[in-house]
Amino acid sequence: MSVVQMVKIVGLGAVALTLSVEWLGWLFCRLWPRKISRGPLKEVFFFPTEVACTERLFTPNSPFPCPCPLPHNINTSFTRLLGHILSASSSLDLCVFAFTNLDLSRAVLALHTRGIPIRILTDMDYTLITGSQIGAIRRAGICVRCDSGAVHMHHKFAVVDGRRLITGSLNWTLTAIQSNKENILVTEEPDLVLPFITEFQRLWDVNDPARRHLLSIAEKPASLVL
Amino acid sequence: MSVVQMVKIVGLGAVALTLSVEWLGWLFCRLWPRKISRGPLKEVFFFPTEVACTERLFTPNSPFPCPCPLPHNINTSFTRLLGHILSASSSLDLCVFAFTNLDLSRAVLALHTRGIPIRILTDMDYTLITGSQIGAIRRAGICVRCDSGAVHMHHKFAVVDGRRLITGSLNWTLTAIQSNKENILVTEEPDLVLPFITEFQRLWDVNDPARRHLLSIAEKPASLVL
Repeated sequence: MSVVQMVKIVGLGAVALTLSVEWLGWLFCRLWPRKISRGPLKEVFFFPTEVACTERLFTPNSPFPCPCPLPHNINTSFTRLLGHILSASSSLDLCVFAFTNLDLSRAVLALHTRGIPIRILTDMDYTLITGSQIGAIRRAGICVRCDSGAVHMHHKFAVVDGRRLITGSLNWTLTAIQSNKENILVTEEPDLVLPFITEFQRLWDVNDPARRHLLSIAEKPASLVL
Repeated sequence: MSVVQMVKIVGLGAVALTLSVEWLGWLFCRLWPRKISRGPLKEVFFFPTEVACTERLFTPNSPFPCPCPLPHNINTSFTRLLGHILSASSSLDLCVFAFTNLDLSRAVLALHTRGIPIRILTDMDYTLITGSQIGAIRRAGICVRCDSGAVHMHHKFAVVDGRRLITGSLNWTLTAIQSNKENILVTEEPDLVLPFITEFQRLWDVNDPARRHLLSIAEKPASLVL
């Protein structure tokens, strides 16, 4: 085979390969649009949501159906939110103003039982409201830090596995989920997730009790420190 | 020129063209990553924000510098939020729980003066709080509907020009902006924006006073209607 013939064959092979890759990509996008063309996960849920049984999310392998009278096996905004929380496999960072919801508390405790590292940042004043789950979560050994400033730590976001952001207007309370008009946005878009990860770490460090203790010592008159 | 030669030339031309397009695209993404590879607008702001003068945003063409003692010409989370609101050129749909901030009220009134259609949906109870701007906005002729349910209309989102979503934990109040720990997410990602547009329209229709009036008549006993 001459050199010229080889060049021609390689050239035509390259055409065929390049065009095939382009067309196969196009075909794949047309056939499975959610898998390829839409990019990172993006979901929006609105509340209030209808009440449904969440038992299957906590015990997916149970052979017994739940006997409760609530509707079963239906997807609601809340079951989807709960599913995202329970999907955590390496970490959960939660920054929430008010936390009284029992199902979400159970989800956090279930993750803790599985050995998944959890950090919770909340508003000091709102740990004292009726039904707050922060005490139970702390007693289970989960690390909680409180923002004790004179104003509100009003965030309502969570970062699952360092890559999935859950944010919106929804506090983790029963009223928010079953009564109020609320929204939740879930995304894995790095440009949106990374600023929340950075802000969580900043607030976590600022509210480190050891750091606060050192600062309070530094602020005391020298005579008192000595 | 023979047919075989023509096929070869066309084939090699196709290789050159396809590879050039691929490589030029790659090169463009490397040189100007923000312009090409990042897709729709995505921004995140955190609060509290430092206090800065916002006069320039309202009067960009004024030849006189603002004489106020606040810092000028600096970008803060609040000036960026205000900039997004003032950028509206065709519509503003706002769904907000509490609205007392004077600068944001001024921005909404400025858009109204420019003739931009504005729809505001808010919580009935929170129109009565001290400093609520809803009264002034209504008196200016802007269309406001109130959710008067027994629970809270707790959303805090806006859609600018039907394509830019502004959402988060931040109510449109001075405390939220200058004191609380809060977040705002701005995006033009259609998968995130469209559900909010649909939900706004649903809530807008549900809270139509004419519809409520008809429903209240329908609920009365027949003898009373007659």
